[in-house]
This record gives sequence, C-alpha cells and structure tokens, in this order.
Amino acid sequence: MTERPGRVVCDITVSADGYSAGLHQTEERPFGEDGGDGWGDKLHAWFTETPEENRAVIDRMAAARAFVMGRNMFGPVRGAWDRQWNGWWGDNPPYHAPVFVLTHHAREPQPMEGGTTYYFVTDGIESALAQARAAAGDGDVAIQGGATTVNQYLAAGLIDELRLHIAPLTLGAGTRVFEGVPPLSLEQVESRSAKLVTHVTYRVLS
Amino acid sequence: MTERPGRVVCDITVSADGYSAGLHQTEERPFGEDGGDGWGDKLHAWFTETPEENRAVIDRMAAARAFVMGRNMFGPVRGAWDRQWNGWWGDNPPYHAPVFVLTHHAREPQPMEGGTTYYFVTDGIESALAQARAAAGDGDVAIQGGATTVNQYLAAGLIDELRLHIAPLTLGAGTRVFEGVPPLSLEQVESRSAKLVTHVTYRVLS
Repeated sequence: MTERPGRVVCDITVSADGYSAGLHQTEERPFGEDGGDGWGDKLHAWFTETPEENRAVIDRMAAARAFVMGRNMFGPVRGAWDRQWNGWWGDNPPYHAPVFVLTHHAREPQPMEGGTTYYFVTDGIESALAQARAAAGDGDVAIQGGATTVNQYLAAGLIDELRLHIAPLTLGAGTRVFEGVPPLSLEQVESRSAKLVTHVTYRVLS
Repeated sequence: MTERPGRVVCDITVSADGYSAGLHQTEERPFGEDGGDGWGDKLHAWFTETPEENRAVIDRMAAARAFVMGRNMFGPVRGAWDRQWNGWWGDNPPYHAPVFVLTHHAREPQPMEGGTTYYFVTDGIESALAQARAAAGDGDVAIQGGATTVNQYLAAGLIDELRLHIAPLTLGAGTRVFEGVPPLSLEQVESRSAKLVTHVTYRVLS
C-alpha cells in the first residue's frame, strides 16, 4: 500500500446496504439502531475483534496528518456549545493530529493529549478542508465522517480516495453513504477480504 | 466453491451504492440511467469484459437448476400479454432450465431452445419458489432478479445465500437491493476481488 502524499482520503465502515449508522442516534446510542449495542459494535467488529488480521488497513486509517469531521460525529451537543464536550475519544484521542470539526457555532480550539487538537470551523466544508490541507503539509487529509459529512465532500468532488469497509449485516435505515450524491465514476484500486469485513478502495474519477 | 444442493441463492450485480438498475427503465434502456448505455454495460463490465478472470463466479451463477424472475426483468410488456415477448435473451436463453416468471396475468408456458422453459406464475412469490424447488430437485434455485423481486424474497426470509457483485460506479438513484427489507444478520462466506468487481457472498442468517 504505497501512498501518494497530499490526498484527501476517506475511510468509512458501512453495512452491506450502505449505512454507517442506524436511525435514532442519541448520546446513549451514538450509532442508533445499528444491529448491536448502539455503539457500532457489529459494524466495527472487524476493527475491534480482528485487529491483527486488518492491521494494514487500520494503520493506513491512522496515517492521515489532519482530519475533518462533522459535528454529529464529534458529539451529541447541538446548537451553542453550552456544555463542555471534547469528543467521544477521551483525553488522548486516536488522531494525534489536528481535527477540524464542522459546526455553525464558533468555539476556541481545544488541545488534547497526544497531539490531537480540535479546531472548530464555522465557514463551511471547503474552508475546513483548506485548513486541514495546510495542517497536513504533504500528508493526507482524512474526511473522518459521519456519512452526512462524507456525502457533502463526495458531492463537492473533494475526495480522492474512498475506502469502504463493508460489514456483514444490513440496517435497513439510517445514515447512508452516497445518499443524495450525484453518480460517480470510480476506479477500484484495491479489494481485500477478511473474516468480518470486505475492504474496497475506490479512486473517485469524477 | 463446494455447493450444498437444494438452496435458494441469488446473484445480483450492484453499483457501489447498491443499485441494480437506474431510473427510467424503458425497452430501449432496460437498465435505465445506469451510467452507461442503458443495457447495464458499466455495471456488468466485469462479466462481459473480464469473463475469464471471473469464470468460477460466472459458472456458479449458471449452475442453478431452476430460476425465478420478476416480470420487469423478463421484459417491458405490462398488463395483459397482448404482445408476444419471450424475454431479452433470444431463442436460446442462457438458463437451460425452467424459469418461473412472476406476473399478475396468466399465460401458457413458453418453451425455448436449449432447455429453457418460461412458466408464468400468478399466485405469488411463495408459489413460484415452491414450483422452482420442485423443478430443481436437489439442485439450487436462483432468484434471478430484478432487485424488486430479490427484495421481496429477502423480506420473506426465503434466500439462503446472497452473492453481491459490486461494480465500481454509483448510480445515485434507481432500483436498490435491500430497499424496504428489514435488517438482516449476514455471515460473510466469501469475498474475492477482480479487476472490475468485488464479489461478496453472504449467508442470510435471519
């Protein structure tokens, strides 16, 4: 897996019917009706239960030098930041890099342990990507999710490489990757299977 | 690929966003707005352009001893059979076995060359499957499509093994596999990649 630097990549785990989360997401069930515990346990079993088999894929996910995520992925707080919330990932988040959070409500940057700093971007997806690119230097920027954010970047033609991790279940409803995105021409760069997942990497051609 | 006999299987080619055909299907464009010529050329490029690479998968698709298909897959005639229509596949169709066509309008069986006979079933999907099972003996029955028919059988819990052939493009709209089907628990039996497709085989657990 040789990587060209400076690309915009996106890793996202989806059900066989394309959902990255189910209906009725709450703070207690951030993935909603996800066929499991509401924390994506079934969807992400490949990641949590068989990490060694998927080591190369997992390492590649962590290799980005800056991340962009939607506010709904960052946390359950809506509207003004009237409650201290620093993400789902504890004091030392797994990003170890700048994370640009899309929001309509301004907030000061939030440094965390281990090199992660959350920056809050109020002027749109292109601004967030430009800031992430500047932070990443010649490294990759990852559009981290959720699917609504991924779909906005896909629709804007701003993702170079999309990596779907397809889990063996269907959700029937929820937040679906590609929903509302105009037709895309893709090149299948790589496809590999593991026990609990099929990984497919697409280059987005148009 | 050892096969247990007597199962109900389904092979279907889908876009990366799960569509087996686009919007606005017509006799001139049976796959509608399919990202290509309206005849599924892009979706099925793996089948037509790289058959040798996919030989085992293609041979397995042809191995069923009876087939069930929806009327919209069989042809563009709607309502009463006021026009002679014997399928899209010429005088010697590739099935070489009984094909049970779901319809609301009775019609006499239509024998074709090469062992294919089209039977027209007016009393529902369970009757069609029962007839196909009886015809297949200890062989497999294939739910041939389209996606609307596949979804009816999935929703009824009547498919044992689902084989998705995922093509590298998205359609954005059309007829989608799993649409309206309650959540399914799947076991990934096999996943293999080829140049123009990713093949994933699921056992349907519930």
